[in-house]
Amino acid sequence: MPRDPDATRARILDAAEQEFADHGIAGARVDRIAENAQANKALIYRYFGSKEELFDAVFAQRSVAFVEEVEFDATDLPGYAGRAFDLYEQNPRTLRLATWYQLERPDGALPEIMASNDAKLTKIAQAQAAGTLPATFSPLELLTAVRALSMGWTLHTPELAQLERPSRERRRELVVEGVRRLVAG
Amino acid sequence: MPRDPDATRARILDAAEQEFADHGIAGARVDRIAENAQANKALIYRYFGSKEELFDAVFAQRSVAFVEEVEFDATDLPGYAGRAFDLYEQNPRTLRLATWYQLERPDGALPEIMASNDAKLTKIAQAQAAGTLPATFSPLELLTAVRALSMGWTLHTPELAQLERPSRERRRELVVEGVRRLVAG
Repeated sequence: MPRDPDATRARILDAAEQEFADHGIAGARVDRIAENAQANKALIYRYFGSKEELFDAVFAQRSVAFVEEVEFDATDLPGYAGRAFDLYEQNPRTLRLATWYQLERPDGALPEIMASNDAKLTKIAQAQAAGTLPATFSPLELLTAVRALSMGWTLHTPELAQLERPSRERRRELVVEGVRRLVAG
Repeated sequence: MPRDPDATRARILDAAEQEFADHGIAGARVDRIAENAQANKALIYRYFGSKEELFDAVFAQRSVAFVEEVEFDATDLPGYAGRAFDLYEQNPRTLRLATWYQLERPDGALPEIMASNDAKLTKIAQAQAAGTLPATFSPLELLTAVRALSMGWTLHTPELAQLERPSRERRRELVVEGVRRLVAG
């Protein structure tokens, strides 16, 4: 056992987050994670099980951090979309991990993510019942469109991403204004 | 050389499309493509170069097919978004391939895709100059938001995708109405 198991575990998760964000699950090399974490490969398997389970641990940690960093406010979905955009811009790993997860773990059912979805959908329904949010679209419909718009710039194909972009402030404005129009009565 | 090189090439591209859509570039196995295409592995490399180049050939073919199947009309972006949604629903491989491409080929610059982007952006600019489309957002901003909304349902995390969804007709309506609001004057 390492002298400081918690620090070792944290170093492994850090190195794994970088490796998985860059290469996905199939492309990730546990050898490389071990080297970058200055940890033993056998120890990684002992702590986390398989490469897939290590990915899930990384992704659950990142998802919980996202929920903590980006406050959800059903009565101000444009503001929420803008904050989500900010985090995607500041931390591109977040969406890369989420995208690999979607592609490589289509049956994923992480309790942290299911709980976060439930909380958001409930808050939207409550805001609609209270009349502070129009009920033109259902909670799941609104969440779907808000997510899509907040990720819009990150969904660019490599070819689109190579074109000259508006400033970050202006890119944010598209997200916020797009959601504002969506939730207008 | 095989007796019918064109048919062999088509079988390889078909098998490769399935393999890459399922597993991405890093996860794809050329052995499996060869087996499913009833083709020789050495022949695949002779025809296409590397696994990465085979992916690009598959993706360029799928992108050209998308552009041919989904008519772009800058004066009716809600209609275009609805047609794009239809194709993503009918052919989930399209967006899976595009997503792997984005993650695994971040420096991608396929001429077919660059030409298609240029054509769309020019048509949007022309419609704005002609006054048939409001110029609130720039062509690239509009294309960004239209793409995002048309892909919204496909961007669901596995956890969101497991929730009960509205009918396909109603999902389509969110896409079309979302874009309609975006392009309103």
